[in-house]
Amino acid sequence: MKWVFTTITGLFVTDDQFSIIDHKPFSGQDYSKHTQILGDMLKKHPDIKSANMDQHRLFLPKLKNPKYFSMFHESNLAEAVSAVRASVNEDALITQAIGSINDLDRASNTLLRRLREWYELYMPEFSASIQNNEIFIELIQEKSRRQLLEQLKLSENSTMGSDLKEEDLKPVLVLASQISAINELKEKQLSYLEKIMVSYCRNLNELCGTSLGAKLLSMAGSLKRLALLPSSTIQLFGAEKALFRHLTRKSRPPKHGIILNHPFVQNAPKQRRGKAARMLADKISMCARLDYFKGGFLAPKYKKELEEKLR
Amino acid sequence: MKWVFTTITGLFVTDDQFSIIDHKPFSGQDYSKHTQILGDMLKKHPDIKSANMDQHRLFLPKLKNPKYFSMFHESNLAEAVSAVRASVNEDALITQAIGSINDLDRASNTLLRRLREWYELYMPEFSASIQNNEIFIELIQEKSRRQLLEQLKLSENSTMGSDLKEEDLKPVLVLASQISAINELKEKQLSYLEKIMVSYCRNLNELCGTSLGAKLLSMAGSLKRLALLPSSTIQLFGAEKALFRHLTRKSRPPKHGIILNHPFVQNAPKQRRGKAARMLADKISMCARLDYFKGGFLAPKYKKELEEKLR
Repeated sequence: MKWVFTTITGLFVTDDQFSIIDHKPFSGQDYSKHTQILGDMLKKHPDIKSANMDQHRLFLPKLKNPKYFSMFHESNLAEAVSAVRASVNEDALITQAIGSINDLDRASNTLLRRLREWYELYMPEFSASIQNNEIFIELIQEKSRRQLLEQLKLSENSTMGSDLKEEDLKPVLVLASQISAINELKEKQLSYLEKIMVSYCRNLNELCGTSLGAKLLSMAGSLKRLALLPSSTIQLFGAEKALFRHLTRKSRPPKHGIILNHPFVQNAPKQRRGKAARMLADKISMCARLDYFKGGFLAPKYKKELEEKLR
Repeated sequence: MKWVFTTITGLFVTDDQFSIIDHKPFSGQDYSKHTQILGDMLKKHPDIKSANMDQHRLFLPKLKNPKYFSMFHESNLAEAVSAVRASVNEDALITQAIGSINDLDRASNTLLRRLREWYELYMPEFSASIQNNEIFIELIQEKSRRQLLEQLKLSENSTMGSDLKEEDLKPVLVLASQISAINELKEKQLSYLEKIMVSYCRNLNELCGTSLGAKLLSMAGSLKRLALLPSSTIQLFGAEKALFRHLTRKSRPPKHGIILNHPFVQNAPKQRRGKAARMLADKISMCARLDYFKGGFLAPKYKKELEEKLR
């Protein structure tokens, strides 16, 4: 009677006393093909049997031999490394991309506040007259002080801003162009993200938009988790603090988390937002499931349904 | 008997009943030259006298005439505008520049953490092997995966990183080059700041370095305030929280605020840092006073004294 044992390092064939009489080590990706290698082994030793738990217990001490020990260590390591390598998939890329977009957004906002404050030493009236940040950045780089004052119908004496020397103004304008560059990069990354999303989870992308969809996915951790989560959890993503405040201190339960950013919830009348959030979360959950289990492209239909219900 | 009254809108000459008989309105910057204009008026009316408080009280109701009222409003506004315009000086520029440098620094750090995390999907071992961020950014943009793996003596199978497609790697590298651009801008602004500091407060700049000096100045609000503050306040700039904790809850008093960043305090043995901070704050205060009251350039001497004391 011979036994065969499959371990991460290879196949071991033993006699009935569990002494190793044959050994086929695995190399590289062999472990995933172990049933095939077992087949080859069966041809060589037609009388082997797969061992059960009890026999394993008797066999394992034989492996304490240092030779097998270091083999185990190496194989385990290689297996772990390849598992880590394989874990880099669209989920990880989407998570990093949306994270980067968020970081860029935050950086751009901080620098923009600084730019406005700094520029307001020079021409406070102009900064106040233009709310749109992108247009503001563009105009201050393009137009001269005289042009801007004319546009505001102000004279050099009636503006509250001081006419900075060119060397003092330059760093302000360079900061402005840096902010433009950051915003441009953000746009680029957003279109990269959209490209992955369209091929990986087009229903989610269609229903929520690239940015919100990616945020939901990165909060869930992966498309798989998002697909398996109940829709009520999706509804409250980003409202964890309010939820626990509700659970521990009996405050009112939150109605929506980050899906509030979706126009469907945002445009709903305030007293119906909770309902709108619930309906949207249902559809998001269905979209994630369609995407994960490779279903059809039903998001446009869901979208239309939601729009009709909102009316 | 005629009286003359100086107001922000102009000179008023009245008879002894305080009825206005002559009026010289100020325009533009005239108010600052009002003694001169008074001289001209004296030639025209040699018998006028400057009024005292009691007469002012009797005269003021005459100005309730709407004609003078709107004049007052306009002159006041113009005066305020020109005061605001005049308030933009080196203090304001330094405050904005150091603030911008801080903001850029924070943005660069946030994005760098993101870059490292993202890049570690691709080559975690390389990111771990290089601590210096600037060198890291440079190398990942220059070298190919094969070169980097060779440098780390790793094979494609033994790295934990996944070989990203080119389109997935590109956004990571673009982020890296954006971070370089931000760092470059920071350097530029630092050298701009240094230029103002050298001409405006060279003692402070010499003793503390550009960055710390500007931070102290912006925390005080202006060079004038920094010069007038007691050195013990300068010593604790940035340790306000700890100070109030000490005052309200009797915790131990703080020994130093942001001047801890100065190498003189940083390099002192821990139990002598409080003393070092006090000595440094004294010298900073003296430097600020030298700079504000246009004294000599004594900072190098102070620096040498501190260095000798540290030994």
